[in-house]
Amino acid sequence: MINVIERIQGYLQREKIDCAFLTSTENVTYTTGFRSDPHERWLGVYIPAEGQAILICPGMEIEDAKSAGWHGPVIGYSDTESPLELLKAQAEEFKSIAIEKNHLTVERLELIQQVFGECQIYDAEHFMNKMRVIKTADEIKLLTKAAELADFAIETACSELAEGKTELDVLAKIEYELKKKGITEMSFSTMVLTGENASSPHGTPGETKIKHGDLVLFDLGVVYQGYCSDITRTVAFGDISDKQRDIYETVLKAEMTALEMVKPGVKASKLDLAARKVIEDAGYGDYFPHRLGHGLGLNVHEYPSITAESDIVLQEGMTFTIEPGIYVPGVAGVRIEDDVLVTEDGYKTLTKFPKSLQTF
Amino acid sequence: MINVIERIQGYLQREKIDCAFLTSTENVTYTTGFRSDPHERWLGVYIPAEGQAILICPGMEIEDAKSAGWHGPVIGYSDTESPLELLKAQAEEFKSIAIEKNHLTVERLELIQQVFGECQIYDAEHFMNKMRVIKTADEIKLLTKAAELADFAIETACSELAEGKTELDVLAKIEYELKKKGITEMSFSTMVLTGENASSPHGTPGETKIKHGDLVLFDLGVVYQGYCSDITRTVAFGDISDKQRDIYETVLKAEMTALEMVKPGVKASKLDLAARKVIEDAGYGDYFPHRLGHGLGLNVHEYPSITAESDIVLQEGMTFTIEPGIYVPGVAGVRIEDDVLVTEDGYKTLTKFPKSLQTF
Repeated sequence: MINVIERIQGYLQREKIDCAFLTSTENVTYTTGFRSDPHERWLGVYIPAEGQAILICPGMEIEDAKSAGWHGPVIGYSDTESPLELLKAQAEEFKSIAIEKNHLTVERLELIQQVFGECQIYDAEHFMNKMRVIKTADEIKLLTKAAELADFAIETACSELAEGKTELDVLAKIEYELKKKGITEMSFSTMVLTGENASSPHGTPGETKIKHGDLVLFDLGVVYQGYCSDITRTVAFGDISDKQRDIYETVLKAEMTALEMVKPGVKASKLDLAARKVIEDAGYGDYFPHRLGHGLGLNVHEYPSITAESDIVLQEGMTFTIEPGIYVPGVAGVRIEDDVLVTEDGYKTLTKFPKSLQTF
Repeated sequence: MINVIERIQGYLQREKIDCAFLTSTENVTYTTGFRSDPHERWLGVYIPAEGQAILICPGMEIEDAKSAGWHGPVIGYSDTESPLELLKAQAEEFKSIAIEKNHLTVERLELIQQVFGECQIYDAEHFMNKMRVIKTADEIKLLTKAAELADFAIETACSELAEGKTELDVLAKIEYELKKKGITEMSFSTMVLTGENASSPHGTPGETKIKHGDLVLFDLGVVYQGYCSDITRTVAFGDISDKQRDIYETVLKAEMTALEMVKPGVKASKLDLAARKVIEDAGYGDYFPHRLGHGLGLNVHEYPSITAESDIVLQEGMTFTIEPGIYVPGVAGVRIEDDVLVTEDGYKTLTKFPKSLQTF
């Protein structure tokens, strides 16, 4: 953790910024090891260009922060205290500050400026993204475990499929089994979509019943010690049509094509373009309306975005999703998504559930 | 819905503000009837002081917005389009704008200013709070239903209690049964805390096993068509000590004392002070470290906050929680929370699960 703070301080010194104040759960976790969702309360880490970083959290969380491994100073505040006034008493004066512009609200920036005076505002996002995009060995372990649990969830989902069960029945079972394994937070709202319901890239699970001949799409992920997984699998329930099968095989080919290009030095945009070309060549170009994938780590959607316009070049230690899909209204919705790690000379998928068409 | 937009336009005209741009899921729901969680995408409703309001949402959600009852103009955008540029093509020029300062990020405000030019910024929060604080009959129906489901969840939890089961076992069962009833979203992370674990106001559910002599605390809520419930009950598992019982009875007395004061015209601060006095008089004043309650509606925590400093006066149609608690480390943690509606001449609790000590 010290290393992370030292790197941020190096950045602040190079850019001649007096301090950083990071406030997102993800960046507080990344810099302090302490993960907390403070809801409407303040949570933040103040990092001066030189000197000690200070964690600010609700008073009742101080012990949790220490047990999470934060050994630096902590400011705990009660509901009637102003965390910013308490920080002011301990922090150096500053004339410039790096904040997370895509996280901090206008109201909170105004409060900071009221307490600390007008100051020059910089965005910490680019630097934090650049640092977080390369995962450490410890982070990869947690992402791997999160992906294993996502695989387990897909297995659970498949074993629950039965004629007449609803999407919500299956969804409830998935999360029930995960909770019993100690998972209390999903990366996002779990999706179980069957038949026509899966043919919108934006369906929501409901009372639709699973029936013979459906393709069933699962998209889910778990949060494991702060790190997210994100998997999509589409499986057949009973006999499916040739058209459904053709769509499935096209998505699988697109996914494998992009996957097999993954190695250090490759432009991310090429993955999107290659997968898109497979789908276009098969005649489904109009039915793949979203990007190929997104970075994955402390956030389920983080830097980099894997699109045809991405200018990022893959490096060892990056983790992201690859998730092409085809959605033909009334016919089928298929998406296949893996969590991918860039290795020294290629890639490794962290999600392992089989991708050849599984029939139940 | 038209009525809400007309009221916002009245406010804009009175304050001489050219337009409002509301971006939180809650305020978009409140003004358009369409509820969506856009994650990192833009969602918003542009409301000029005069003329038609325009909904901005991801293109794939247009149909959902229409089926939710929004009949005004919609701007749908794809992942490669700028929603603000599309809005600019349809909106009047403006020199002043009301935004949700406690929701809009610094980055997004900068983008608005880049696209529309520098403009005067006002905060829409106060006005929106004032409007939302009085619930309509339709809103009360939804809040009542959300509270009924919270009662059901507590019943489910109680029937699941057994020696040796873990907090997570019970939690999993609660959410499983709710999912089967079509509830896909909880108001916040469900809490099941037993024994000493409940004696921190900030415990998290884990592998702790329920054992004879424990007080078990449940705090949970569901989201029903956008509206939230929030209930806490504490029950006994087997025989508890006199001390535990004394703490329970004190919390119950504090809760009932505050409840019975609820009627139009009463200052909210008096409720907090009265409940606090009951707890102080019983010698537990140091162990009630949080506010008495909070507003409840489209947000699980919304305006007004019910504290000793609240300056709000209760009016018919307000809904909020009353939730005193006592947490004596190593002895017991007890909290009792109801969802309360201010009626013409008193109050009604929307949550109904019994509050006399239940033993299992």
